[in-house]
Amino acid sequence: MSKAGGDEIGGGSSSEGAHQPESPSEKVLSKLSATTLPIGHGWTKVSCPCCVSERVEPLVLVKLGEKVRPETKRWLIRLIGAPQKDGGAALLAHPGEDTSGNIIVVSAPRCTLLRATEELGLCKFYRNEDMAAFSYNDRDNFKDSDNMEVFLTLAERQYIVKYELDGMRAQRDLRIPGLSDSYTLHHRDNVWQKLGSAGVIVDMFPLHIPAKLKDLSKAWYSGNQLAQPLDSVNGYFGSSVAFYFSFLDFYTWSLLPPAILGLSITYFSGEVQKDMESVSGSGVTRVEDESAVVSGHMIQAVFSMLWSTVFMELWKRRSASLSYRWGTLYLAERFAEPRPGFHGEVGVNPVTGRVEPLFPEWQRDLRMALVSVPVVGLFLGLVVLGMLCFYWGEAQVQQLHKDWDSLLSQTLLYLPSMLHIVYTNMLATAYRTVAQSLTEYENHREESAFENHLTAKVLVFTFFNYFAVLFHIAFFKQDVPLLRKRLASLLIVTQLVNQFTEVVIPYLVDRFISAPYRTESEDDPEEDKFRNQSNLPAFPGLFAEYIELLVQFGYLSLFSCVYPLTALLLLINNVTEIRTDAYKICKLFRKPFSPPVANMGVWQIAFEVLSFASVVTNCWLMLLSPQLQELIQEGRMSSKNILLLAVLVEHALILVKVILALLIPDEPNWIQKKRERIEYTSMQALRQQKQHSEES
Amino acid sequence: MSKAGGDEIGGGSSSEGAHQPESPSEKVLSKLSATTLPIGHGWTKVSCPCCVSERVEPLVLVKLGEKVRPETKRWLIRLIGAPQKDGGAALLAHPGEDTSGNIIVVSAPRCTLLRATEELGLCKFYRNEDMAAFSYNDRDNFKDSDNMEVFLTLAERQYIVKYELDGMRAQRDLRIPGLSDSYTLHHRDNVWQKLGSAGVIVDMFPLHIPAKLKDLSKAWYSGNQLAQPLDSVNGYFGSSVAFYFSFLDFYTWSLLPPAILGLSITYFSGEVQKDMESVSGSGVTRVEDESAVVSGHMIQAVFSMLWSTVFMELWKRRSASLSYRWGTLYLAERFAEPRPGFHGEVGVNPVTGRVEPLFPEWQRDLRMALVSVPVVGLFLGLVVLGMLCFYWGEAQVQQLHKDWDSLLSQTLLYLPSMLHIVYTNMLATAYRTVAQSLTEYENHREESAFENHLTAKVLVFTFFNYFAVLFHIAFFKQDVPLLRKRLASLLIVTQLVNQFTEVVIPYLVDRFISAPYRTESEDDPEEDKFRNQSNLPAFPGLFAEYIELLVQFGYLSLFSCVYPLTALLLLINNVTEIRTDAYKICKLFRKPFSPPVANMGVWQIAFEVLSFASVVTNCWLMLLSPQLQELIQEGRMSSKNILLLAVLVEHALILVKVILALLIPDEPNWIQKKRERIEYTSMQALRQQKQHSEES
Repeated sequence: MSKAGGDEIGGGSSSEGAHQPESPSEKVLSKLSATTLPIGHGWTKVSCPCCVSERVEPLVLVKLGEKVRPETKRWLIRLIGAPQKDGGAALLAHPGEDTSGNIIVVSAPRCTLLRATEELGLCKFYRNEDMAAFSYNDRDNFKDSDNMEVFLTLAERQYIVKYELDGMRAQRDLRIPGLSDSYTLHHRDNVWQKLGSAGVIVDMFPLHIPAKLKDLSKAWYSGNQLAQPLDSVNGYFGSSVAFYFSFLDFYTWSLLPPAILGLSITYFSGEVQKDMESVSGSGVTRVEDESAVVSGHMIQAVFSMLWSTVFMELWKRRSASLSYRWGTLYLAERFAEPRPGFHGEVGVNPVTGRVEPLFPEWQRDLRMALVSVPVVGLFLGLVVLGMLCFYWGEAQVQQLHKDWDSLLSQTLLYLPSMLHIVYTNMLATAYRTVAQSLTEYENHREESAFENHLTAKVLVFTFFNYFAVLFHIAFFKQDVPLLRKRLASLLIVTQLVNQFTEVVIPYLVDRFISAPYRTESEDDPEEDKFRNQSNLPAFPGLFAEYIELLVQFGYLSLFSCVYPLTALLLLINNVTEIRTDAYKICKLFRKPFSPPVANMGVWQIAFEVLSFASVVTNCWLMLLSPQLQELIQEGRMSSKNILLLAVLVEHALILVKVILALLIPDEPNWIQKKRERIEYTSMQALRQQKQHSEES
Repeated sequence: MSKAGGDEIGGGSSSEGAHQPESPSEKVLSKLSATTLPIGHGWTKVSCPCCVSERVEPLVLVKLGEKVRPETKRWLIRLIGAPQKDGGAALLAHPGEDTSGNIIVVSAPRCTLLRATEELGLCKFYRNEDMAAFSYNDRDNFKDSDNMEVFLTLAERQYIVKYELDGMRAQRDLRIPGLSDSYTLHHRDNVWQKLGSAGVIVDMFPLHIPAKLKDLSKAWYSGNQLAQPLDSVNGYFGSSVAFYFSFLDFYTWSLLPPAILGLSITYFSGEVQKDMESVSGSGVTRVEDESAVVSGHMIQAVFSMLWSTVFMELWKRRSASLSYRWGTLYLAERFAEPRPGFHGEVGVNPVTGRVEPLFPEWQRDLRMALVSVPVVGLFLGLVVLGMLCFYWGEAQVQQLHKDWDSLLSQTLLYLPSMLHIVYTNMLATAYRTVAQSLTEYENHREESAFENHLTAKVLVFTFFNYFAVLFHIAFFKQDVPLLRKRLASLLIVTQLVNQFTEVVIPYLVDRFISAPYRTESEDDPEEDKFRNQSNLPAFPGLFAEYIELLVQFGYLSLFSCVYPLTALLLLINNVTEIRTDAYKICKLFRKPFSPPVANMGVWQIAFEVLSFASVVTNCWLMLLSPQLQELIQEGRMSSKNILLLAVLVEHALILVKVILALLIPDEPNWIQKKRERIEYTSMQALRQQKQHSEES
């Protein structure tokens, strides 16, 4: 008997189910599920008998516009519940306590979840043994495939709901009830996008499960634990969030060796300094001490250059293990439906044989080459221009102040900096919009490709913005002391600002603004609790978090030989960062949707590029080191020979790094074996099956 | 009715079939096949009815030792014909005209060929449409799968015979008839290796088919044609040979742009030279002219650096297309039986689930790191040592000659060179043996891995041997004129020697030594013709051919800015090289076995590494260019600034090359689509098939 189906799909208003007097048996069942289910009945009926379940878990909340009329809401609920062949999403929808209210709660029946699992290419345990790409036909052989709450993680279930809703396409031309004719759906129109632009849907977010969240936060950041509960994070927040925290974790502990080295170098060179002072005057000792400092810095630099490669290679291995563990190693995004925003002429996909929009690769390449690259270049040029203007202005006001020396000129001293900051911020804001439209214009088929291209664009710009000044100091001004000062202040200021924005502000917000939501009593209707969640700000995404790490990593690797304590400062920062980030995502924002991903995507490449660029900068900085400069001035080595030596060292280091990167396999051996095993079995399967797909 | 089977597998001597009076029907059939078949009867019986064929094509000749006793030969013929489950090769064997003679002719029945085609992972046309990995179960859907001579190329059929013979393993302990007990076969012993070490089998080679060979040579090198018949080459000689010739072809035509550029630069700088002479004395003109020469050389260098990357990337695309065309894009060597020489503890392969020897990866890595790398390093060190001794000796005898100036000292002048040549040759010979044993010791599972590691070892050494002197001149002596002289003489000498060894000698050999074999009359017994083929020398492999190209490419890319005519000389050389190489492989050697390969393997990497190394050498040579040196001496630019500029240019060029390499996809778009299509269909197949393989 279906408890989940309290409402007819076809039949009129869904409010009938919610308001009709409950039968005794229904009452019992309703009580039974009351602890786990906010709304025991009122769900749309499931279409297939195997999906009938007593427990319907509210997964996603869809927030409608204030002015949406009841008939539109009823139509939408019916659509969400309709089977996919009728253009629906084959999900379960609930109109909330008040049928005319502006929320719809959505859940997913078993069959829809399983089919989407196959479509996304998620891997699950096959008969308790290995991970295997899930197959709907073979579902009975997969472990726990009868219990969705164990089989799929919460994040996966919620993402699947979003995936199905996003993917709904009109099967024929259709008027939306309660909307003007201008919003008529045409054949193959994306329903969800249309409803969004019509203002029917204003928001959609996955629901928190307070009990689970409490457990998670306890294990994650409340105590003094060193390890993060990454599997639970993956289960609750999804793999893209889990990958960020795994990387943060791995990166933080990888900072230990350079931190220790930096500390000891600083300690010993401090010792040496003191020795030097005590034996001042003796030229011989002095030279020796100096060479000790030089070699200390050099050891630090060479170590950190090699360290960064080893670190990235080991991370790739860890990332592959995690991705296997979380079932995202063989994601089939290429073979799934294109992302909603993708457009093109409808045709037959040569790979999957499905009818869908197609967009030629070369056209995308052309758009990237002729539009995106020049525009990004232009913005980078504007950054440089801004910097040059800043320096010019700086010089001007300095001159002015020297000439006049009044209060006005004193104030004017701050003008260039302020103008530069304003200019930079405006540029960044403009750039973000431009990057979004450019990536949209590039028309990527897969969500991940879209994300990666967008991230790459913003990343390059942001990074350039952060580092342009440092590079200017290092390569043009060639002023190592200034660089050191700047770097140290950046590191410390960044940390203070971070700690403030990420610990203090959140705490205050939580204490004085979010607190009312937490005082909600147990007796409050579930719907109000859901509604409360929608009052939290939307999660801003992981870009800011990743770029913070990348900039850190840039300070560390690009200019490590200048300031040996960098790694230590970063280590301290990151240990708290783990906790504050965890706190932020758990408490301060709405839960984000998180697509299953197999790795960090473009961020991994960014870190690797930095790691190679670091060789160039470090060799250059070593060349600039005062000790070497002194050697040149004393005429003990010609500047040409030192330069040649630096070039030689640089080439050797790059070679070593390349070889290291090639020698350390990107995947642990056991994963490679599993991958080969899967390739082999699918090859065998292809051979045994008489390729029926060719006929269909 | 089986015509192919004239002899009982189980029953006694195979000579019975050959000598018994022919029945009338047999006579007719024998005549019928006489034109295509040398030996119409006397073949072992085929075991399955579908393979019965009137035509048995002799594919491979096995040459036995002189002292092999008839019972051993009979046993071997029986074994070759026995089905695989009994430890045989499931092939067809023929004892030759004279049953006690020392040859066995081997052919393959349809089923064995088809099964091996699947095992090797060869792709064939599926129902006239796309290429698909061949599947034995699905054989009826593949085009021409009933006619082996169309379905598989000659080279593939011959390789499969070798593959099956090489792969025979004893199913139980077995005494070989006619051999002493010390050659008893043990369970899982490789039969063919054992027979080789027992002296039973002295040789094995694929047979030429004179008619086909004639057609091929006509289309290939007899006329003035510009294009090579690469598909026919692939069909007759197999993909590894075809890949060499395709690369040679592609490389030769790719030399056109640098050749034209080099020619025009030489022409114009010659013009300039003349102008300079005519207006000699005018300082201003002189400087201008010089800068013209400088920029000419620089254009050449920059062009050739970028050209080499574009060339390699385009070759990769061409290589992918060829490999698709020749059905070797999805070779399944990893999943096939390990190579005969592979040993290890017998266990279950975690990927395929088959019982076979296993050898842990880490142990191989360890052997490579701790044994192979140091030994190779040692030999490279010996090369350097030899070179240093040579220079030292050279200096000594020069001094001696100056002091004494006698006939003796005159002769002594040649001593260091001669000693060095002897030393180098001895070292090279020793190294080849060492490399072979090292690679054997590394115990690679796949034939291709073995080949690649062996090639890589010899390659590094040979290359080092060739280029050590040039690098010494360029980087230590820093003597550009000497380098130019050396390079020009190397190029011209190499070409003359090549033309001589590859055109004149082959012609003489063919005219006066091989000629007798060609005068054989049509009426000669086929067997004698086969035997004649065995008198030709064995094909020495493609290593020498590839290394010649690599060394050429090295001259061209590493030192291109020194001698702009390099490309032109190489172009001329290669146009004739194509013909002489083709002539050599067709006429002067036994036909080689050629495993199906998907690309050039390690050679591709070698070319790419050279292409990147070329940036370093070229920038360095530009730095050494007399014009720049003069600028420095005249004090118009500091040596430090010029060095910095060179480093900057070098980094920029490497960056551009990396970006170019990343931007040009390694596979044409259509192949990528096909590959994705295959991935998709096998994923689908895996899902639909209820993974029976897990149970078996």
